[in-house]
Amino acid sequence: MSKYQTIKEQAYKANMEIPAQHLALYTWGNVSAFDKDAGVFAIKPSGVPYPELTVDSMVVVDLEGNVVEGNLRPSSDTPTHVVLYREFAVKDGKNINGIIHTHSTFAVSWAQAMRPIPLFGTTHADHIQTEVPCTPYLSEEAVKNDYEKETGDLIVSHFRSLKLNPAEVNMCLVGGHGPFCWGATADKAVYNAAVLEEVAHMALNTISISPSATPLPSYIVDKHYLRKHGPNAYYGQK
Amino acid sequence: MSKYQTIKEQAYKANMEIPAQHLALYTWGNVSAFDKDAGVFAIKPSGVPYPELTVDSMVVVDLEGNVVEGNLRPSSDTPTHVVLYREFAVKDGKNINGIIHTHSTFAVSWAQAMRPIPLFGTTHADHIQTEVPCTPYLSEEAVKNDYEKETGDLIVSHFRSLKLNPAEVNMCLVGGHGPFCWGATADKAVYNAAVLEEVAHMALNTISISPSATPLPSYIVDKHYLRKHGPNAYYGQK
Amino acid sequence: MSKYQTIKEQAYKANMEIPAQHLALYTWGNVSAFDKDAGVFAIKPSGVPYPELTVDSMVVVDLEGNVVEGNLRPSSDTPTHVVLYREFAVKDGKNINGIIHTHSTFAVSWAQAMRPIPLFGTTHADHIQTEVPCTPYLSEEAVKNDYEKETGDLIVSHFRSLKLNPAEVNMCLVGGHGPFCWGATADKAVYNAAVLEEVAHMALNTISISPSATPLPSYIVDKHYLRKHGPNAYYGQK
Amino acid sequence: MSKYQTIKEQAYKANMEIPAQHLALYTWGNVSAFDKDAGVFAIKPSGVPYPELTVDSMVVVDLEGNVVEGNLRPSSDTPTHVVLYREFAVKDGKNINGIIHTHSTFAVSWAQAMRPIPLFGTTHADHIQTEVPCTPYLSEEAVKNDYEKETGDLIVSHFRSLKLNPAEVNMCLVGGHGPFCWGATADKAVYNAAVLEEVAHMALNTISISPSATPLPSYIVDKHYLRKHGPNAYYGQK
Repeated sequence: MSKYQTIKEQAYKANMEIPAQHLALYTWGNVSAFDKDAGVFAIKPSGVPYPELTVDSMVVVDLEGNVVEGNLRPSSDTPTHVVLYREFAVKDGKNINGIIHTHSTFAVSWAQAMRPIPLFGTTHADHIQTEVPCTPYLSEEAVKNDYEKETGDLIVSHFRSLKLNPAEVNMCLVGGHGPFCWGATADKAVYNAAVLEEVAHMALNTISISPSATPLPSYIVDKHYLRKHGPNAYYGQK
Repeated sequence: MSKYQTIKEQAYKANMEIPAQHLALYTWGNVSAFDKDAGVFAIKPSGVPYPELTVDSMVVVDLEGNVVEGNLRPSSDTPTHVVLYREFAVKDGKNINGIIHTHSTFAVSWAQAMRPIPLFGTTHADHIQTEVPCTPYLSEEAVKNDYEKETGDLIVSHFRSLKLNPAEVNMCLVGGHGPFCWGATADKAVYNAAVLEEVAHMALNTISISPSATPLPSYIVDKHYLRKHGPNAYYGQK
Repeated sequence: MSKYQTIKEQAYKANMEIPAQHLALYTWGNVSAFDKDAGVFAIKPSGVPYPELTVDSMVVVDLEGNVVEGNLRPSSDTPTHVVLYREFAVKDGKNINGIIHTHSTFAVSWAQAMRPIPLFGTTHADHIQTEVPCTPYLSEEAVKNDYEKETGDLIVSHFRSLKLNPAEVNMCLVGGHGPFCWGATADKAVYNAAVLEEVAHMALNTISISPSATPLPSYIVDKHYLRKHGPNAYYGQK
Repeated sequence: MSKYQTIKEQAYKANMEIPAQHLALYTWGNVSAFDKDAGVFAIKPSGVPYPELTVDSMVVVDLEGNVVEGNLRPSSDTPTHVVLYREFAVKDGKNINGIIHTHSTFAVSWAQAMRPIPLFGTTHADHIQTEVPCTPYLSEEAVKNDYEKETGDLIVSHFRSLKLNPAEVNMCLVGGHGPFCWGATADKAVYNAAVLEEVAHMALNTISISPSATPLPSYIVDKHYLRKHGPNAYYGQK
């Protein structure tokens, strides 16, 4: 048995949730599961349809982007995952052990419109306290240099410039492209991607109903977020 | 066997309809079933995924908000249910024995837009004779005081000020949040939540087709409502 | 065995397609199957959920609206079916032996917006050569007189005034209410209701993409309709 | 066994993906599989519901439009397939061995609006490097002459006038009608039709969110397309 069995199983299970939650068509999308101590993550192989995935087909990659175990090529988005784990999990020390990229319909639509998703209601505030950030386009130089790595750098620099805490704001739209989300586990990353898709759908409906809709007052945002996530959270079982 | 077995079974069955009718994702949403004579209701435990629910996991709560039976924490929205049962079922004496809260996509979208849902057609009028009311935001003071209880108070005061009869208008949008519905049984509360979601979807479509769409004439509203609900109702079997 | 066994079986089977094709929620909607020689039709009983329907529960009604066979109340919309069979099938002699009423989401939305559905494309023209007609609201007098019968009269008078042939234009929106469709059989009536729902969805999308979208040129409309329905039709098997 | 067994199996399998991928209702839509060496293709019989299809029911047609094998009439759109294979596969020598026509909801909506689908994001650019072309309406003369053949001619002339390479741009909207797509195999044609539908949905959402949304910069378009399709493509397994 592989010494990376645990993260391979986590990654396999989380990847299978992409079609189950309708977050992407065909082979699109990918999830990784990170082992911080070992400094490696398991990720979906590139271009393989979900019904053909197995635990053994997961590819284990280190934080230099080198394949450590596995017979297949890792997802083409692997260098983006490398950057996000290095910056957010290792350098910033945040509790992030899962990352997901999808092409879910409504989240991609906001990314294509180059607009952050406004925080209109408590469904959104239950999960993050800010609008869902949306990066500008990558520069031509960045695209020509090392596209997937630069996508990670763009997310990180966007978070730095907005002073967002990636342990709290666990989702980002890459302008013209689509969403990356993350979480304490690969499962929670998938959960966040499904939340984002629902919030993106509701927000489009909201501006269709009322083009001048205004954001939720901050005192309600904070209340909802903190009842689920603060030190005195009282949602769920202890 | 619990002496609250009946309401626990009703609450369990009704809660399982939330995912079946696509009224919320994951652990979101909750239904309660009320025993007016005993002055208690059974409600979903907080934060538990639907596939893990059992009859025994339902939590029984009295109208002071105290847990009477059950090993788990009740839904964080329990104080809202307490207020609605106390005011509408006990104080006003209405035949209300089930309450539901969901995050269904289209109903939440109108709540986020802070707009009551106009009464555009007979699908709506078959169920209620008014637009679906939408409260303003809770005040900052109310949020800081006792958020979930105040949410119930807000619904009640909104109904009082609009002179709405909660036995007839069995649904309300909480501005910036989402829908609460109720009914003579927990099952009927779920039914009303599903009706609301469909009506909310149709109403968004209607204003997209015709931004100047006007409400259904009141004589058609009354006819449709009364053929289903009036003393001479002739819809359904006797 | 009932002497109306054939139409009861047709009506049962066609009614079960309403939930299968997602044309209405819960107990909403109804289909009837007509036996022109016998002058009776079988129709869904009022207010019964689809999973509880059986062939035997279908109610047989004559063209005076009297129940000829069956233990349950017929659909509350039965008088509308009576009028349409009397006028279109018997008086006009058209080959119409099935009628359906649904509350399908997008068709209802156009009815609520009080707008006929423009003929934008060949999906529509494959089935009818005109926009989908939409009646005005029923008058207050008509509603107070005999609501369901008057609904039938309204459809008929709308068709007469527009000089529409109900054998060709087999669908109508009742303003503020929803669609009635019909066909040579109960099955074909259901098919037409499903086509209408798809056409209604596409038309809403079309005006969202281009508010100034124009109707399909009549020479394409006629070509598409006639290749399926004209004397030299060449769609399908002989 | 038929000497056309392979393309009949390919055509059967690909046609069954039309309902599986929700690309058309009832009998609508059709896929063909081409054998370039033999100069024939297998296609869906006209007007047959998908659940009734079998491998043996596929109709084999040559590039003059003559039925070479099969007991049923081929799809009424067969002359369009003939033109596209003759022009794009034989005359232009492109690797195209599958063609599909659907009435998928969102792609038809853009065709009805007579608008090419703008290239807003990487989901689109992963597959084609241009907006999805949309032809003008067929002329009245063309419709009266030979409608389905002229539809093929219209697509071909539109591609010639825009200097589009059909091996790269493998999808086209026919104005007022709907999409035709193609690919190296019948399976890949279906895949392209499903991609088109998703891209069409996302693009409608995008202009709803931001009516002034602008196309993706060409350097990102080219990067995404080439990482999947260029000589140095690195998406998927080798």
